[in-house]
Amino acid sequence: MRVLGVDPGLTRAGYGVVEDIKGRLRAIAHGTLRAQGDTVASQLATLRSRLAAVVREHEPQAVAVERLFVTRNQRTAIRVGQASGIALLVAAEAGLEVVEYGPLQVKQAVVGTGSATKDQVGFMVGRLLGLAEKPDTADAADALALAICHLHSWKITARANAGAAR
Amino acid sequence: MRVLGVDPGLTRAGYGVVEDIKGRLRAIAHGTLRAQGDTVASQLATLRSRLAAVVREHEPQAVAVERLFVTRNQRTAIRVGQASGIALLVAAEAGLEVVEYGPLQVKQAVVGTGSATKDQVGFMVGRLLGLAEKPDTADAADALALAICHLHSWKITARANAGAAR
Repeated sequence: MRVLGVDPGLTRAGYGVVEDIKGRLRAIAHGTLRAQGDTVASQLATLRSRLAAVVREHEPQAVAVERLFVTRNQRTAIRVGQASGIALLVAAEAGLEVVEYGPLQVKQAVVGTGSATKDQVGFMVGRLLGLAEKPDTADAADALALAICHLHSWKITARANAGAAR
Repeated sequence: MRVLGVDPGLTRAGYGVVEDIKGRLRAIAHGTLRAQGDTVASQLATLRSRLAAVVREHEPQAVAVERLFVTRNQRTAIRVGQASGIALLVAAEAGLEVVEYGPLQVKQAVVGTGSATKDQVGFMVGRLLGLAEKPDTADAADALALAICHLHSWKITARANAGAAR
């Protein structure tokens, strides 16, 4: 099972591809997609083509996208919402399953507690994947965490189904 | 000058194409695009293909999209944000100029006052375009109002440029 995690953003979006091979997690790729263009529309178009290129190159079977919450800066929230719409679109157009996870679910899956800090998430992502080098941005680390979170819930579901089939 | 106005929404998006022919406004097409699919991602993919079909059929030269504000329902705001991202993407990928207008600007352009009600906007849209039939939804009426708003500011700019060139 290979999962692409996406931490959407207009000018900077993190991505991380993680594979579960017989219970061992391996990072296939991770990085940061930076927007180009001087309008929001052209930045969204860049994001779409770069994210679609990641999907073509790494062929994930599912996509995990960060579920958004409106916090303090509402203007930013709208822009991140637009970017997350592009991430969902790219997944749907590639025919992939796509699931949104909130920050609490991700922290719970990666660190074991919803009150984990960003640093703890980054540390555990590196630990779980045995990364030699730290992801280039916090967005890339968050994207890897999203992919791990999806693999985690996929395993729980698979185990429950196996139990039910017995 | 032919403009496509889009009032974005996840399950229902209004569109309206308006042309300015020597100062006379004419409605070329208007209607409501309804989402299909049982996931947000597939609904966004439907929205993209339907909106792209409207652009191919009516060949606007510019696109006007409603600028979003986060109001009471934040969950809805995120979904509308994702839909508006798709509208901006479709415009950018068709190589069209795209401008976002806030509700105040639209009301000002169509009714002459930012405090106009939805009914007043609908009435004036019908009046300005000489529509025989009311648009099928308030979203379609809002989309026509967005197109009128863009033509309005385009004329002001054109006039200013003509003055400067004299």
